Amino acid sequence: MTELTPISATLLISCADRRGLVAAITDFISRHNGNILDLAQHVDAAENVFFMRVEWDLTGFTIERDQIAGAFAAVAAPFAMHWELHFSDAVPRMAIFVSKESHCLYDILYRYQAGEWQVTIPVIISNHPDMGSLAEKFGIPYHVTAVSKETKPQAEAEQLRLAQAYQADFIVLARYMQILSAEFVEHYPNRIINIHHSFLPAFAGAKPYHRAHGRGVKIIGASSHYVTAELDAGPIIEQDVMRVDHRDSVDDLVRKGKDVEKLVLSRAIRYHLEHRVLVYNNKTVIFG
Amino acid sequence: MTELTPISATLLISCADRRGLVAAITDFISRHNGNILDLAQHVDAAENVFFMRVEWDLTGFTIERDQIAGAFAAVAAPFAMHWELHFSDAVPRMAIFVSKESHCLYDILYRYQAGEWQVTIPVIISNHPDMGSLAEKFGIPYHVTAVSKETKPQAEAEQLRLAQAYQADFIVLARYMQILSAEFVEHYPNRIINIHHSFLPAFAGAKPYHRAHGRGVKIIGASSHYVTAELDAGPIIEQDVMRVDHRDSVDDLVRKGKDVEKLVLSRAIRYHLEHRVLVYNNKTVIFG
Amino acid sequence: MTELTPISATLLISCADRRGLVAAITDFISRHNGNILDLAQHVDAAENVFFMRVEWDLTGFTIERDQIAGAFAAVAAPFAMHWELHFSDAVPRMAIFVSKESHCLYDILYRYQAGEWQVTIPVIISNHPDMGSLAEKFGIPYHVTAVSKETKPQAEAEQLRLAQAYQADFIVLARYMQILSAEFVEHYPNRIINIHHSFLPAFAGAKPYHRAHGRGVKIIGASSHYVTAELDAGPIIEQDVMRVDHRDSVDDLVRKGKDVEKLVLSRAIRYHLEHRVLVYNNKTVIFG
Amino acid sequence: MTELTPISATLLISCADRRGLVAAITDFISRHNGNILDLAQHVDAAENVFFMRVEWDLTGFTIERDQIAGAFAAVAAPFAMHWELHFSDAVPRMAIFVSKESHCLYDILYRYQAGEWQVTIPVIISNHPDMGSLAEKFGIPYHVTAVSKETKPQAEAEQLRLAQAYQADFIVLARYMQILSAEFVEHYPNRIINIHHSFLPAFAGAKPYHRAHGRGVKIIGASSHYVTAELDAGPIIEQDVMRVDHRDSVDDLVRKGKDVEKLVLSRAIRYHLEHRVLVYNNKTVIFG
Repeated sequence: MTELTPISATLLISCADRRGLVAAITDFISRHNGNILDLAQHVDAAENVFFMRVEWDLTGFTIERDQIAGAFAAVAAPFAMHWELHFSDAVPRMAIFVSKESHCLYDILYRYQAGEWQVTIPVIISNHPDMGSLAEKFGIPYHVTAVSKETKPQAEAEQLRLAQAYQADFIVLARYMQILSAEFVEHYPNRIINIHHSFLPAFAGAKPYHRAHGRGVKIIGASSHYVTAELDAGPIIEQDVMRVDHRDSVDDLVRKGKDVEKLVLSRAIRYHLEHRVLVYNNKTVIFG
Repeated sequence: MTELTPISATLLISCADRRGLVAAITDFISRHNGNILDLAQHVDAAENVFFMRVEWDLTGFTIERDQIAGAFAAVAAPFAMHWELHFSDAVPRMAIFVSKESHCLYDILYRYQAGEWQVTIPVIISNHPDMGSLAEKFGIPYHVTAVSKETKPQAEAEQLRLAQAYQADFIVLARYMQILSAEFVEHYPNRIINIHHSFLPAFAGAKPYHRAHGRGVKIIGASSHYVTAELDAGPIIEQDVMRVDHRDSVDDLVRKGKDVEKLVLSRAIRYHLEHRVLVYNNKTVIFG
Repeated sequence: MTELTPISATLLISCADRRGLVAAITDFISRHNGNILDLAQHVDAAENVFFMRVEWDLTGFTIERDQIAGAFAAVAAPFAMHWELHFSDAVPRMAIFVSKESHCLYDILYRYQAGEWQVTIPVIISNHPDMGSLAEKFGIPYHVTAVSKETKPQAEAEQLRLAQAYQADFIVLARYMQILSAEFVEHYPNRIINIHHSFLPAFAGAKPYHRAHGRGVKIIGASSHYVTAELDAGPIIEQDVMRVDHRDSVDDLVRKGKDVEKLVLSRAIRYHLEHRVLVYNNKTVIFG
Repeated sequence: MTELTPISATLLISCADRRGLVAAITDFISRHNGNILDLAQHVDAAENVFFMRVEWDLTGFTIERDQIAGAFAAVAAPFAMHWELHFSDAVPRMAIFVSKESHCLYDILYRYQAGEWQVTIPVIISNHPDMGSLAEKFGIPYHVTAVSKETKPQAEAEQLRLAQAYQADFIVLARYMQILSAEFVEHYPNRIINIHHSFLPAFAGAKPYHRAHGRGVKIIGASSHYVTAELDAGPIIEQDVMRVDHRDSVDDLVRKGKDVEKLVLSRAIRYHLEHRVLVYNNKTVIFG
């Protein structure tokens, strides 16, 4: 995002499908002199639900920025829309949770410093000290909160306090090998992104590469999803796969899988950052 | 398409980008009580060109079907839109040109008789008699027009006459191994779909698998494109690839490639039939 | 296989790993003037098991064809090898079981008549009459054995009788929607090839596309495996996948999935026909 | 490679195909009490060339390590084999050339420090100072040799001197945006690995993503190859691809392409390091 990029607004909308929805929304933008940059729409015919993402250039838009939400609320009300409004110059704050594996963290930090994403990483939180020096290299605060069966509630309380103190908008679990409690998850609904090292729903839970090897699959995968109370069962944001064969040991699967994990997680983060994800019925609509 | 599917209309639109385009179009639909089923839009920012595909349910639409084009013309004029209007109950007529290779023809005929597409195949035209018995199995008229260097103009005149006599809306070259003249192509602009057995622009022209083998590529591909006057240089509709290795002979590439060719061509045909393709600057916008 | 292709022999071997295995085997071939065309070998280090496939030209081989097995037995004995010997001019007999879905059957019959495989299809067996006319087009005997909960034992007895009467070497379930009993499977150990329309082990059992849609996966797949007594749990021979998104209905998944099913099943059949598959620990070694 | 991994030797062999080659080689290993860990063999039937890679455990091997080459030479001579012998505890030295783009360098350095490869990176050489701080973070000497049209010969002389001073066994061009002269390349035949940001042979040369965008391709790719005197025309080691569509700008292609480039280059490096690559007729045999 260079200085010359004009500021845009993005609306993410879902509601029961009805006639006139698109016209009402685009008329709102057009009437106030907004130029639509990108519009995508989807109707789940089976569920009769309408989804839409529309982004428009705010240059010359006749409603003041801080009045747009209020003005749009009047459009949304008769249709009982659920909606979010985002501005392109807002920089979301992404907290990272990590354990001992470095590949996803490293990949995220590279993209961060290379400017691939419009994001701030205010804090890295871990249950182990191992990644501290890497965090330090990138000048990002690193907090260790050891987690054991007994200390989990206190640890999560501390993690929550940290996430809030650093004003995290959302959390990325970059191979964080602990299960978050339902209570913790409730604080960030559809705002905790996990990477699971299998092609879900196959091999949910522990040691997926060992189990993939044991089953003799010919393709392995990785899945990024929003965390819900149920383990590895939240809405899938992105998945990808890689071919393997009988010559690959478990260690080979682990090594090859890392490359898929990095890719899948980074794409999920991008979709989330660009407000391209709508969650419905434990599934996602991705306006790619 | 079951009997209960309501009839819909689809507009494909392109023009210079301006404020209010989406609103004007969707308002036209909404004002006349149309329910939008699917809308996709794209702006080529570098070229300042607007593209849109919108499909709406005609049930309860207040403009008579045969008046819609006239009514929309008034919306389109101020924006200087290029547009096409299609109705979902229209059944396009697809002529097939083939030489001696059967795999694409067979695949098309299977999908045809299995009802995968809403299409009629009124005629198969070939420069060889080989596929005649296959055409007969499916009850489709088969015409042979031998093509040699000398007879090409007459042969093309006959092919054109046949295509027109059978009222073909578009033509699919299902591995038709002759180059069509610019004159012929002009009769079906962006309405002749070819499958080329390489990952274009690599290996345009003759014997792509031999050349792929000679170059030692690790992946082969196939490309479906609209035919233009320049060989294998028209707008690409769809491409896909398959991994190969040093153990694969040219014959193996030919065999493996057939599976990619079939898939790529069938997808391109589907996009075309569903009016999902807009051509601009020798490229395609595919509203997938 | 043209008339000029020389006849070759292929050995498929597995046993506990020991020094000298490869040398003993290749020396046997070399000593009798055989020219190795293709050799692949694999050691499962974790299990200490040795696998090998070796194919050699019989031109000038100094052991008579019908004496090779006996001669090799002497080599195999000290190593306690499991082994199979195949000749390239043998034409395996492949029985097909099918229900009502035509896509895999059609694909198989196309490849069959196009000469892609060296195989004979002596019989098609179904629990429904629907595919009879297709079988007739290709001149293949078609037998209907209706299967209900009550009649299953008799139906399987009849199917077994037919498979044996037609001298089937192996059986392909081309979307045969019945579960074969353990008793039936025992007659064809690692010789019944199934295609399951999911990326196993995800969505084993019924209605995988519905469940994939319900789970909101971003990629669907198909898996070909040898049938064992446990449903969809046999050794996986081949898998492949296809990307889908939120716009795809269950019907779209079914349609797109068919293309993956066809590809995966045809590859598995090829591996089996070319004697490239070794089964061990409910997994496959594929000498590709 | 842990301390407990036994040391192995690997032979890479090519020669005209003849009877008895495999037996002669494996007998040499077996006779001296070597246990074959991995053997792969390939015959290019069209060219009548034999290729083989065999790796065996040196534990208990009855020939002293420094006598193996001499002993094998006697086996190789009658067949006029070309061969290389490698030991698994040797750590190759990989010099990196880079310009201003960081993604491939970063990816390589991550894999290096994570221990993914058995390699030493003694030096990074660049025509720009930009990557100096990154090199410093990893404690690797960084040398800048500015290259202009006039200074190229001197610059290459200096680069060659550096590569030799740091005892580089091979060179990786991690997006080094200069063309190496034929004279330079001659010093490292089949030992300079380049990553080109297109699916070769499409878009060889400059600005491949711009040209891919201009052509409207639906898939982009990256290719890793050994550098020869002809630009982007050397033997291809590995390629991979990624799907794109009309919504992707040139910048999007550049961004998405980086992920493919990193993967493809890292796989090519691995194949090279594990002595899995044989070059013949400007193509590669990869014993995967």
